[in-house]
Amino acid sequence: MASLTSRWLGNPETAVRAIVFDTFGTIVDWRGSLIVSLQNFGMERDLEAPWERMADRWRAAYAPNMDRVRHGALEWTILDELHYAALVELLPEFGIASLPESDLRFLTSRWHRLSPWPDAVEGLRRLKKNYIIGPLSNGNLSLLVDLAKFAELPWDVIFGADLFRHYKPDPETYLGVCGFLGLRPEQVIMAAAHNYDLAAAKELGMGTAFISRPTEHGPGQTTDLSPKQNWDFIATDLIDLADRLGCLPQVG
Amino acid sequence: MASLTSRWLGNPETAVRAIVFDTFGTIVDWRGSLIVSLQNFGMERDLEAPWERMADRWRAAYAPNMDRVRHGALEWTILDELHYAALVELLPEFGIASLPESDLRFLTSRWHRLSPWPDAVEGLRRLKKNYIIGPLSNGNLSLLVDLAKFAELPWDVIFGADLFRHYKPDPETYLGVCGFLGLRPEQVIMAAAHNYDLAAAKELGMGTAFISRPTEHGPGQTTDLSPKQNWDFIATDLIDLADRLGCLPQVG
Repeated sequence: MASLTSRWLGNPETAVRAIVFDTFGTIVDWRGSLIVSLQNFGMERDLEAPWERMADRWRAAYAPNMDRVRHGALEWTILDELHYAALVELLPEFGIASLPESDLRFLTSRWHRLSPWPDAVEGLRRLKKNYIIGPLSNGNLSLLVDLAKFAELPWDVIFGADLFRHYKPDPETYLGVCGFLGLRPEQVIMAAAHNYDLAAAKELGMGTAFISRPTEHGPGQTTDLSPKQNWDFIATDLIDLADRLGCLPQVG
Repeated sequence: MASLTSRWLGNPETAVRAIVFDTFGTIVDWRGSLIVSLQNFGMERDLEAPWERMADRWRAAYAPNMDRVRHGALEWTILDELHYAALVELLPEFGIASLPESDLRFLTSRWHRLSPWPDAVEGLRRLKKNYIIGPLSNGNLSLLVDLAKFAELPWDVIFGADLFRHYKPDPETYLGVCGFLGLRPEQVIMAAAHNYDLAAAKELGMGTAFISRPTEHGPGQTTDLSPKQNWDFIATDLIDLADRLGCLPQVG
């Protein structure tokens, strides 16, 4: 931490210039938003299902295919398509026989309209004054652009996994960001609510900021409740991170 | 024009969703800004030179190397490096023997700090309400991010040539943007002050908007003084484009 602090306060050649953020969970409450979307859809279509469990299962269900992409068993496929395929596989489990294509696309597009955590927009606005900020997400660029417009996230730049044709935690994503920004890894902080993400970034020499999101997975969350390493910054939310980085509230 | 207007007003499946903008000349006054930067540098270093001509020569000098990249004679090289190399080649012509590396880098980085045309920020803010907006520039991403922060350009997303490892007017740039946005070419408008740029975009099925910038190259400009084709939109500046696209000023 001391070394990062000196880098951050230090001379411009080595100072931290950018912060990139995991998005699902760190910036937006995907679970709460998705549950509301599924409930509304159910009411409109007169369908009943345990929507909370469906949201959790949906989130879990695309991970194996993402890993198949990461390990080369499946060719590059964007997250929207992984979401779509996971939904189609999942519906029978919930007794929903078949939905028209337009409904499947509509539900998949709900991942483009997720609400930010209450601190996110203010925290990002403050951080943006002193740093380049952007998502580094496994979402595809178009999803992240729609999400930013919906949630009013004031990004300077958007890094989607499709820019790299790799998913986190592949090093190509983190190093790709540094490359496009023309910065060395130590000039970029990765901010995430997930220890695995920070571990991968740290391994490559990036700074790290753990953002606590203890209800991302609902009230019974068991993972990522605490920092698993001595990350450079440990923050309760994005406003707290802005405070720790000396980014003052806007005046006037 | 009728067909684009109907697309734009029409059903959401075919409506225009995004506008991408040439940046040097269309959004920012590179020439006026660069002249001031060079003059200031000259005063600080006690150097005299025809700075206006140097700005023009610098802009012209990287084009041949860009073409060498486009035709495969030179491997992929970002615009910052082309600017740097062109400057080094140019200095003897202006009787400036040699500058330290730090000065060369400083001058090259002036391309990251160019002032917007007076209408640009307001026009973009209005367009952003109804459309996804971003640069599609031959600048590299890091240059465009710095430029956006300096000039307060409210982009939703940044498309630099290095995302595609191709320079405009290569089709990979225009089609790459459409691909990342998940949109068909007819759902994206290319806005530029340069007819060649719009011709390439139109060829691929994109919408086109000509923005008049009759003093981009100074008072004696002879190129791009008028639209050379029947572009979908022809606007005197970005506020005029916003008006034509029905994007009202912000209230309150």
